Amino acid sequence: MRVAVIGLGKAGLPLAAVIADSGVEVIGVDLDKRKCEMINSGENPIPEESGLDDLIKKYGGKLLKATPDYTEAKDCKAYIVITPLYLDENKNPEFCTLESAFRSIGKILKRGDLVVLETTVPPGTTDNLVKRWLEEESGLKLGEFYLAYSPERIMTGYSISRLKEFPKVVGGVDDESGRRAYELYKRFVSNLILVSSAKLAEFIKIIEGCYRDVNIALANELFKIAEEIGVDFYEARKYANHEYCHIHLPSTGVGGHCIPVYPWFLIKEMEKRGKFEFARLLRAARELNDEMVNYWVEKIVLECLKFNKPLSEVKICIKGIAFRKGVKELYHSRNLALAKLLAEKGLDVGVYDEMFTPEEVEELGLKWREPDEGDVVFDCFELRLDVK
Amino acid sequence: MRVAVIGLGKAGLPLAAVIADSGVEVIGVDLDKRKCEMINSGENPIPEESGLDDLIKKYGGKLLKATPDYTEAKDCKAYIVITPLYLDENKNPEFCTLESAFRSIGKILKRGDLVVLETTVPPGTTDNLVKRWLEEESGLKLGEFYLAYSPERIMTGYSISRLKEFPKVVGGVDDESGRRAYELYKRFVSNLILVSSAKLAEFIKIIEGCYRDVNIALANELFKIAEEIGVDFYEARKYANHEYCHIHLPSTGVGGHCIPVYPWFLIKEMEKRGKFEFARLLRAARELNDEMVNYWVEKIVLECLKFNKPLSEVKICIKGIAFRKGVKELYHSRNLALAKLLAEKGLDVGVYDEMFTPEEVEELGLKWREPDEGDVVFDCFELRLDVK
Repeated sequence: MRVAVIGLGKAGLPLAAVIADSGVEVIGVDLDKRKCEMINSGENPIPEESGLDDLIKKYGGKLLKATPDYTEAKDCKAYIVITPLYLDENKNPEFCTLESAFRSIGKILKRGDLVVLETTVPPGTTDNLVKRWLEEESGLKLGEFYLAYSPERIMTGYSISRLKEFPKVVGGVDDESGRRAYELYKRFVSNLILVSSAKLAEFIKIIEGCYRDVNIALANELFKIAEEIGVDFYEARKYANHEYCHIHLPSTGVGGHCIPVYPWFLIKEMEKRGKFEFARLLRAARELNDEMVNYWVEKIVLECLKFNKPLSEVKICIKGIAFRKGVKELYHSRNLALAKLLAEKGLDVGVYDEMFTPEEVEELGLKWREPDEGDVVFDCFELRLDVK
Repeated sequence: MRVAVIGLGKAGLPLAAVIADSGVEVIGVDLDKRKCEMINSGENPIPEESGLDDLIKKYGGKLLKATPDYTEAKDCKAYIVITPLYLDENKNPEFCTLESAFRSIGKILKRGDLVVLETTVPPGTTDNLVKRWLEEESGLKLGEFYLAYSPERIMTGYSISRLKEFPKVVGGVDDESGRRAYELYKRFVSNLILVSSAKLAEFIKIIEGCYRDVNIALANELFKIAEEIGVDFYEARKYANHEYCHIHLPSTGVGGHCIPVYPWFLIKEMEKRGKFEFARLLRAARELNDEMVNYWVEKIVLECLKFNKPLSEVKICIKGIAFRKGVKELYHSRNLALAKLLAEKGLDVGVYDEMFTPEEVEELGLKWREPDEGDVVFDCFELRLDVK
């Protein structure tokens, strides 16, 4: 059996490696030629992913072959798509990358093949868009091929262990597709659950993200209230949380490819149907999280006012611009947004992040500044505001 | 040592019984004479409270003496207040019952006494209002008496086990008060935590309620979306929930004395300070939960339309009017609100609840109807809409 994995990014490559590790031959397709060459020579392009080095070294170029060319995957019996999905400026999903991947698969799709989508998508995407793209390109009808959905549940840095231990759900566009996808995944996922449909599996993944987003928003709101009334949020959280209470941590907002994106799939779907009131809480949470940068800008500026010099001469250092500590990722980073907002206000802001070089920071249009060079230092990960 | 417990309701009586069970003499003060007589004769006025029967039988009239008269508590060294706090029609707390309790204590308060509040209150209540009431009535100053806060964390039906096992926090208005309250509670609470202040302890209790309210609102919102797009919310929830995801259950809203009340303490406090945007999520969640009855009315009426007769002749049965299954409590019951709303719309609605008699239902201005007499039966606890 030979399986194709389309998209060798932070979610796709660990999956491809885990499949190879189960003894199944994998053709990994990724448009990035250099990345394919690295993988084929046993070099891991995502070194921060724990456990991935070993797997790429062992299987790269052997059981796991990477290629930018779809036709090299034409003998595969199963195609797993795990390419990113971004939002446009109106918060609607941009399907172009996914569409292109599925149309490319459609061109090489054969009778009896199985196609599985792993990318988090709005509910109904697999049933409608993906099925249509595949049918249009292949000339086959569903039933002649099989189609299912199984959301990736990885977390950058822990993807291998997540894949090997965390429950994974899979749902088919029809029953036979679900059964076939289940049989495939059973080879390399130990904790696998077959659910009633692809749409349900899509919904499951999104509501996990919504739970996180709303609860981070709640933590942010309670944090602001605690500061306002003068109690220590962290002490309160420590003793409020127990078996039935899971208050999250406050933040500068929520960044990355997942949590700030998924709620929009439901919000936009409801708004498209004219059901604005059906996604009111999700929208309020999303906006609250995005607006946290304004809260922190106020706090920082109030600290700057305490210096006996013009505001624009107080040296501000923003420590941490990645969306999360320990990753080199800027997608929807609210820490980066915070630094940019301070710069837009004409303040003297520099940034520091251990994952980035001064040159990389300057390419973002920002100044590099070591924390000990700042009059006011705001640590975005610890939410600590220190004054020299 | 002798301890007074002021308020022998669903929270106070279990507390008084547990204190007596630790060998400490308790004077329970409650204005309800008949209830005091019952307790003193060993009869439990709250039979649905598991384990309370035995304790009242054992200690009632002996180690636990109930009285409507505060002066009988004048030799106590500690006073624990656990009387209810309601909201007025503008969602502001009505302090009259609490004020009256503390002023009564103030009249008998002696140098060295300890006073502890257990009722859930807006943060700062103990520091400000309670201190002032006690000082005004007693002529003593804080330091001559001690004042602390320790939130009840009971749950009707499970109060005894909660008190004996669940972590309980206590915080003083000053350090000495905190220490003394800790020493007192240590006698009958095994899992006790001294936190930095009374205000923090007040905040802890409220944010637990906020977590619950917001997460029930989230469940309600996701449930509506699931119904709209045609997936099974319960199946999705089952597989979405894991160690890091705790999606709650949908409902007709949130009733009872606790969860629908506590968020208002923070919302109103922020609004009083002009910080409307600091409690936006809490308010959205509160409103969403309260408006769930409208959602269910729509669902029920759409079912009624399927019958081949005038809407007003379709027999609707609302099964369950208490705010929660298994309790005989109507405070802020959204199930009762749902039944009343249907009646206001001129529909033929009857209600059924195993905890109530037909006479009790009629006293509420509603008709009694057995489920098998209804054309359309809505079970408020199971959210099941059945049609004959």
